[in-house]
Amino acid sequence: MQIAIIGLGRMGGNMARRLLRKGIEVVGYNRSPEVTATLQREEGLLPADSLHEAVEQLSAPRIVWLMLPAGNATEQTLHELIPMLAEGDIIVDGGNANYHDSMRRAAELQTHGIGFIDAGTSGGVWGLENGYCMMVGGSEQDVARLEPVLKALAPAEDRGWARMGPVGAGHYTKMVHNGIEYGMMQAFAEGFDLMRSKREFDLDLARVAETWRHSSVVRSWLLDLTADALSKEPDMAAIAPVVPDSGEGRWTVVEAVDQGVSLPVITLALQARFASQDEEGYQARLLSVMRNAFGGHDVVKR
Amino acid sequence: MQIAIIGLGRMGGNMARRLLRKGIEVVGYNRSPEVTATLQREEGLLPADSLHEAVEQLSAPRIVWLMLPAGNATEQTLHELIPMLAEGDIIVDGGNANYHDSMRRAAELQTHGIGFIDAGTSGGVWGLENGYCMMVGGSEQDVARLEPVLKALAPAEDRGWARMGPVGAGHYTKMVHNGIEYGMMQAFAEGFDLMRSKREFDLDLARVAETWRHSSVVRSWLLDLTADALSKEPDMAAIAPVVPDSGEGRWTVVEAVDQGVSLPVITLALQARFASQDEEGYQARLLSVMRNAFGGHDVVKR
Repeated sequence: MQIAIIGLGRMGGNMARRLLRKGIEVVGYNRSPEVTATLQREEGLLPADSLHEAVEQLSAPRIVWLMLPAGNATEQTLHELIPMLAEGDIIVDGGNANYHDSMRRAAELQTHGIGFIDAGTSGGVWGLENGYCMMVGGSEQDVARLEPVLKALAPAEDRGWARMGPVGAGHYTKMVHNGIEYGMMQAFAEGFDLMRSKREFDLDLARVAETWRHSSVVRSWLLDLTADALSKEPDMAAIAPVVPDSGEGRWTVVEAVDQGVSLPVITLALQARFASQDEEGYQARLLSVMRNAFGGHDVVKR
Repeated sequence: MQIAIIGLGRMGGNMARRLLRKGIEVVGYNRSPEVTATLQREEGLLPADSLHEAVEQLSAPRIVWLMLPAGNATEQTLHELIPMLAEGDIIVDGGNANYHDSMRRAAELQTHGIGFIDAGTSGGVWGLENGYCMMVGGSEQDVARLEPVLKALAPAEDRGWARMGPVGAGHYTKMVHNGIEYGMMQAFAEGFDLMRSKREFDLDLARVAETWRHSSVVRSWLLDLTADALSKEPDMAAIAPVVPDSGEGRWTVVEAVDQGVSLPVITLALQARFASQDEEGYQARLLSVMRNAFGGHDVVKR
């Protein structure tokens, strides 16, 4: 089995490592060549200095796995690849693309006879060791061809990956996965904040988290990570109270509006991130001004 | 080691079993005597026909563990126990009491020289097999006396239980645990509903859940249970769309208001339960009437 991975960042680089260690031949291309050289030296990656060189090292029918930031980077690379590929080749997008984009791209590739698979990939930096959870969309034939790669990336051959449905279903389920993740994370953050606020009990939050890891209803991988983080840095002194969001939470909420599905908790978890990103505090300042205007209430001045 | 358990229901009964199997002597009293007889026959429980009989079988200093519904049942039993107990005895409340009640009760018991421990207990029907997660509040001396019992109930001697702080800290952390649980459950429910709504992908939700169980960010015990439930009854045809709530979610939200801590997701998860309990649909009907009044919009008639 042979595959090219385009994009050897935190995710793509570790996926290449895992595949190489499982005996799969991996051709790798990355915009900055240092990581390619490292993977060549340490893991036996077949290095490529360009997209073209990556494709050329594969024998047809080819499988090219993109592990790039969603949006422009993925779109542009995909279009550069089209003239280099031939009928029967498959492009896999393992990034966090919007499923609408994936469906559009699959339709475009189909006019060239090129297959497309959207493989929503979870597991973060722990995937190298634990394996990746992959939600796969695509035709049954295309996914069958990718199976050896999926089995090698997954935590075990028979688990942690599945064909979810046609093209789009992979990135759709990955999008919802991330929406749920937002809600779970926010629930934990709120609960720990409420416990912290109860100064009279002087609770050791790392200890609470560690206790909950065993036999409680909220035990989860996110709690494992939280317990570990709180035990190392209970004050999180170096961390600014700003939570970025990378798209999938927004798409989940837009999708819920499109479908008319009530999604209160996931929506509010996203909005809590927006509030954390807000440096101007315009809403709070306007509310303060209104209170002063109608009630003469004091405003807090900078 | 010897203890009395008052209340041998789903939780108390299994806890008695687990203790007896670990060699702890358990005196048991339950309002309806059938379960007491069963536990006597099957597990060697020392049966009691009354509170008085339960206390009399213990040698001083005694430990009496209440496993009763929070509120009246706990309050009343506790007051019946006071004249039967003596200085140096300890009452443990393993139920889901409000931590304010626990602090008040501890103060009252203290005037009689009786100790009090609030032991928030999680693990549900799975506790017998997996052990219970226990969040314990009380004086260091009292908790030290209870330690053999806590170690036997926990998943292992050194994990799944901890003294969280003084009296109240046990039920406080258990309350917040349940609040977080509300948020996590709601996030999952919303995500699976959004996937279900996407008819064109015809997603097998049990398969999605099963896939996520391995190496995904949302893996958790709640997801394990969800995957199992969806694989057995994907349509949940026999289940009415009504989610009861048993107090701790409400207390968490009230506590957040008292402390002035922002708790959007947990609050909304609670309100989603209220909405599910609402048979009259008054709000939706009033909104419909308003829309009709100002815009002439059609109302949906029964």
